[in-house]
Amino acid sequence: MSSLFGHLFRISTFGESHGGGVGVVIDGCPPQLALSESDIQRDLDRRRPGQSDLVTPRKEADKCRILSGVFEGRTLGTPIAILVPNEDARPEAYTEMETAYRPSHADFTYQAKYGIRNWQGGGRSSARETIGRVAAAAVAKVALATLCPGLEIVAYVKSIYQLDAVIDPTTVTFAEVESNPVRCPDPETANEMATLIRAMRSRGESVGGTVECVVRRVPPGLGEPVFDRLEADLAKAMLSLPATRGFEIGSGFSATRMTGSEHNDAFEMRGGQVRTATNRSGGVQGGISNGENVFFRVAFKPTATIAQSQKTVTSTGEATELAARGRHDPCVLPRAVPMVEAMTALVFVDHALRQRALKPE
Amino acid sequence: MSSLFGHLFRISTFGESHGGGVGVVIDGCPPQLALSESDIQRDLDRRRPGQSDLVTPRKEADKCRILSGVFEGRTLGTPIAILVPNEDARPEAYTEMETAYRPSHADFTYQAKYGIRNWQGGGRSSARETIGRVAAAAVAKVALATLCPGLEIVAYVKSIYQLDAVIDPTTVTFAEVESNPVRCPDPETANEMATLIRAMRSRGESVGGTVECVVRRVPPGLGEPVFDRLEADLAKAMLSLPATRGFEIGSGFSATRMTGSEHNDAFEMRGGQVRTATNRSGGVQGGISNGENVFFRVAFKPTATIAQSQKTVTSTGEATELAARGRHDPCVLPRAVPMVEAMTALVFVDHALRQRALKPE
Amino acid sequence: MSSLFGHLFRISTFGESHGGGVGVVIDGCPPQLALSESDIQRDLDRRRPGQSDLVTPRKEADKCRILSGVFEGRTLGTPIAILVPNEDARPEAYTEMETAYRPSHADFTYQAKYGIRNWQGGGRSSARETIGRVAAAAVAKVALATLCPGLEIVAYVKSIYQLDAVIDPTTVTFAEVESNPVRCPDPETANEMATLIRAMRSRGESVGGTVECVVRRVPPGLGEPVFDRLEADLAKAMLSLPATRGFEIGSGFSATRMTGSEHNDAFEMRGGQVRTATNRSGGVQGGISNGENVFFRVAFKPTATIAQSQKTVTSTGEATELAARGRHDPCVLPRAVPMVEAMTALVFVDHALRQRALKPE
Amino acid sequence: MSSLFGHLFRISTFGESHGGGVGVVIDGCPPQLALSESDIQRDLDRRRPGQSDLVTPRKEADKCRILSGVFEGRTLGTPIAILVPNEDARPEAYTEMETAYRPSHADFTYQAKYGIRNWQGGGRSSARETIGRVAAAAVAKVALATLCPGLEIVAYVKSIYQLDAVIDPTTVTFAEVESNPVRCPDPETANEMATLIRAMRSRGESVGGTVECVVRRVPPGLGEPVFDRLEADLAKAMLSLPATRGFEIGSGFSATRMTGSEHNDAFEMRGGQVRTATNRSGGVQGGISNGENVFFRVAFKPTATIAQSQKTVTSTGEATELAARGRHDPCVLPRAVPMVEAMTALVFVDHALRQRALKPE
Repeated sequence: MSSLFGHLFRISTFGESHGGGVGVVIDGCPPQLALSESDIQRDLDRRRPGQSDLVTPRKEADKCRILSGVFEGRTLGTPIAILVPNEDARPEAYTEMETAYRPSHADFTYQAKYGIRNWQGGGRSSARETIGRVAAAAVAKVALATLCPGLEIVAYVKSIYQLDAVIDPTTVTFAEVESNPVRCPDPETANEMATLIRAMRSRGESVGGTVECVVRRVPPGLGEPVFDRLEADLAKAMLSLPATRGFEIGSGFSATRMTGSEHNDAFEMRGGQVRTATNRSGGVQGGISNGENVFFRVAFKPTATIAQSQKTVTSTGEATELAARGRHDPCVLPRAVPMVEAMTALVFVDHALRQRALKPE
Repeated sequence: MSSLFGHLFRISTFGESHGGGVGVVIDGCPPQLALSESDIQRDLDRRRPGQSDLVTPRKEADKCRILSGVFEGRTLGTPIAILVPNEDARPEAYTEMETAYRPSHADFTYQAKYGIRNWQGGGRSSARETIGRVAAAAVAKVALATLCPGLEIVAYVKSIYQLDAVIDPTTVTFAEVESNPVRCPDPETANEMATLIRAMRSRGESVGGTVECVVRRVPPGLGEPVFDRLEADLAKAMLSLPATRGFEIGSGFSATRMTGSEHNDAFEMRGGQVRTATNRSGGVQGGISNGENVFFRVAFKPTATIAQSQKTVTSTGEATELAARGRHDPCVLPRAVPMVEAMTALVFVDHALRQRALKPE
Repeated sequence: MSSLFGHLFRISTFGESHGGGVGVVIDGCPPQLALSESDIQRDLDRRRPGQSDLVTPRKEADKCRILSGVFEGRTLGTPIAILVPNEDARPEAYTEMETAYRPSHADFTYQAKYGIRNWQGGGRSSARETIGRVAAAAVAKVALATLCPGLEIVAYVKSIYQLDAVIDPTTVTFAEVESNPVRCPDPETANEMATLIRAMRSRGESVGGTVECVVRRVPPGLGEPVFDRLEADLAKAMLSLPATRGFEIGSGFSATRMTGSEHNDAFEMRGGQVRTATNRSGGVQGGISNGENVFFRVAFKPTATIAQSQKTVTSTGEATELAARGRHDPCVLPRAVPMVEAMTALVFVDHALRQRALKPE
Repeated sequence: MSSLFGHLFRISTFGESHGGGVGVVIDGCPPQLALSESDIQRDLDRRRPGQSDLVTPRKEADKCRILSGVFEGRTLGTPIAILVPNEDARPEAYTEMETAYRPSHADFTYQAKYGIRNWQGGGRSSARETIGRVAAAAVAKVALATLCPGLEIVAYVKSIYQLDAVIDPTTVTFAEVESNPVRCPDPETANEMATLIRAMRSRGESVGGTVECVVRRVPPGLGEPVFDRLEADLAKAMLSLPATRGFEIGSGFSATRMTGSEHNDAFEMRGGQVRTATNRSGGVQGGISNGENVFFRVAFKPTATIAQSQKTVTSTGEATELAARGRHDPCVLPRAVPMVEAMTALVFVDHALRQRALKPE
């Protein structure tokens, strides 16, 4: 439950920051898809630490191994287990966390919930947990290529701290996103962002920002009415990522400042299809895709781990101070991009399979 | 699936705007709780149309009937079925919707998904669908009173269009919320909001806004790491409500404009408990409640149904114009308050039961 | 959970023997299927009491009403709610059950589990609970006609007490089953069974027996490896019916007395298809249908409610005696036939939808 | 789905006979339980091949490794991943299976379902798949020791081919079961069974039989009414094991030959508890445990893999003959005992957690 996601393409993730490894079991992947470890490694490499000077220097190769579910390069339809062993664990960097609760981290809440926690490197609350998601999503993308041909998911950094990028979601490309280590496809703002992140690191500080994601060439009819609306499942998926604080789709919070006549998307015929003249709905109406681009934004708070000294208490209730010594990201945004993409792929593959089961002939 | 919600306190809603009725089956409600139809009716009355001149005048008494699961005034532990028959259905008010798709409504997407739709009154996409949720949540609140004694859920209108209320979530009371038909516990702003809503209606327009919700006296330890984080389940719950566009918890999107040292919540001892000095986390860290108030905001777009004429197309692809004749709300916010409360109660009761199953002795 | 069944065609049943009514909500039924109340009533009439002198004379018309999910005679794809009001409730016939536990009934275990029970007519443990299943299955059959054209489910009484019928599962027809009130398509044995049941009733006794069910023209590929094997889901479905004690598929328990060479089903080509020369596997291998007839047997114990006086205890721990005064079946087998059929249809429709979602193109 | 089991103690198994390995992820295990690899290895050793001359000589050490969820010897409450690498894979022993379908095996049905299969060693349909279940169940037993103190699960061989053992389920001990390699705690019959199995092997034959399982000191109140009855979940669990053909609880199929007065279990007070004078119900009434011993039997067919030559067809539809060359068990019963025990533990731990969530205070 806590670590299960999806209804038909169902994943079960596992692993702590320190321990044998992290990974995922995927149950419900369609058979006969071409799949290799390199398909998965490509996305893991975009998520892993040490890929640029903007992110944590923790040295993890994050090499994945497919343990089951693939035979002679094709999926079998049976569970696909993927394992990434832990390598660069340095428990000694975290010894003070054994007793003191890091501010705005999950140390205290895990202790309150379970009465026990793996205090090394954050245990299950480490961003390392997202490896299983990214690996599963790499498989989901392969499945989506068959289920929804042409569907494209592009996520990118939209803002960091007070810096806002100007990006057109209808045309932005994956190559543009990957052209700089910030993953912001507005090169000038990306430069400023990189400078800001380096400055924050040197001050022992951190910053947050927003990731925007667009899904293009979505077939109409994905999603469900009522609880499993496409936007509801996306919201859950995004808020399940570490450090997220908010989600908005289409016009989002700005819709609250508009009138109905300003906000509504008129229907029109275009290319023989029912289309909307505008897209304030963000591609979803009544919980179901309407064939327009689905786009949404996710708010990430500044990294809780900072080198500055902070007030906190110990597990025995003594006041103390704590300054992070472990390796950490001054800004999670560049690495958050593949995570947002991953959760998006997991939501879409599940709804694509659900729609295939139930659609009228 | 589409109409199921919850893992242990699991509800299954049903019903269209026009047809036999709407309702819910609750599976997994603890036994021996005192429950009567009036406990449910109280919340349905806050949700129903016609309760003030600010909402739709559709005349629905929305009288509920408990069909099963309660015996001599106490819950049995077996499924509780609740039915609210439809009464004031006027299919003739919707005849043009048989062929034309209402802009920013679900007419087109239902047709795309199912190849069929109940065009009368929006069918399953009508706000009437939320009756089942509100009824189930009334039962959830009774269960929560036992599971989390003292826990309090208060939702209220925080903004409408450009009007922002000033409300202190730590002290606001249910009585203050209910003291005016807008359900905004800032009386002056509430008056302005009422005036605005009436003006919008007279112009054939509509407006949206935000609902804020606070949950007080939350025990630490509710929620789960990874996918079923408390904030992730709340986000899904809120985005599953009709007309929602966004969700943010605690500092929300404003967190993206702060540094780590500005944002982090220092821990301190208070009253013998581990507490946070500030509450930018919104009561949740790592997906699990930390004992502080949980608070969040939900964005609602302006009602899609407006009396002004709008461009659209017919199901056969002809351009046409459509002006709403049916009765509708110029602003959903006052009636959205009990809906937000309801979804919050459903999320909390489920996590309270989950925690009871798994907690260390 | 306790009252939810199915993964894609998911039903949620509700209702006690005494109270507002019993029924079901079906979530996940494909859209655009022709469906009317008479499709459902037909099967409810085969399940209801009072249909012959062999079953309980309780007078329940069991008239169903579709509350939602159907529009102009076709399914909408949204939840289908079906309600059957209770009519002939006579709580006064059950007053002694308020304090005494009926032997081999669920009175004591409900009390132990919930600390409360509806003692009138068995409450949720009444056979009346199966109405929701039979109603849902009537809808499932309509869906199966599209999903698996030609698929046929025939259940019948195979034995009662010491009387064994001789029936060929490969050819037996629904009309033969329905040709006598015992629902045993071996007319001579059926007569003996009817005589036996009447004799048992006059002695205040009851008898059990076995129902056999065959599913013909099953497409190969339904079912799943590991936990959700077709036979595992059938076993669960059957053992979830009241009064069941056992399940066996194909060769069943007799397989334990054979050697491998005697038991194995040789493959051969027939009509251009891979077929088995024998069918000891009962149409399922490795949890997945192989295209042969699926057949299985279900053991029903003798009805626990008997007119003879029996020893028991009261809820306060006093020894007492109890003789049934309520109306009851001296043998559940004739009415069990549509229940077995119903659970079979629910298992097959769910696996047909699952296979449609995941099947290779 | 296909490889997920349980609602609160939820396991996800993975792995094929040939490939990286087999294993399981457990989500929902309570925290703070003492757990080590040796707790798991003990049960894996009872399941593994090569443990006596009665079972397959395939040489697999089946050494398990806990990858996550345990810290300093105690469970964390987060997912527990357990991996058992494959070692003694000899794909060359299976080359003919690439093209020919083994009779009464899953080769053909996997091909029909997925359009692809791992033909080496049976792939996912190999008995090796049960390693994940046995490992998860070892953890479940640790949890049960806390949740249901004193609860005891003992399974044993009750019959093989025509040989029936005489065993008293109320007193049989684990030590008696393990005292001989047949796992039949009736020493004389066990000897005859061992002789029979050796004879069958020398003839290139195989035999089946029944396993009986008893659960003692079960608290009243476990299980659910309607679909998730304790016996229904046990039936599904058992029929999900490879080579099973039937399940019966308590009086089982013999109940169909008895009258109600012969079959009913009278209630009486014993030791201040409500008890039954007899136990034909097998400890379950209305789907819920009544505090008596739960006992049931499972039918296993003779091993499908035999050394004798058998008729079959190839994947291109040619008639052919096949004689097994791979290593295999002439009788699965001795190794089935820990599998039945494992599935029983998984059902009970899930229901124990469910009851803890919902029980009245």
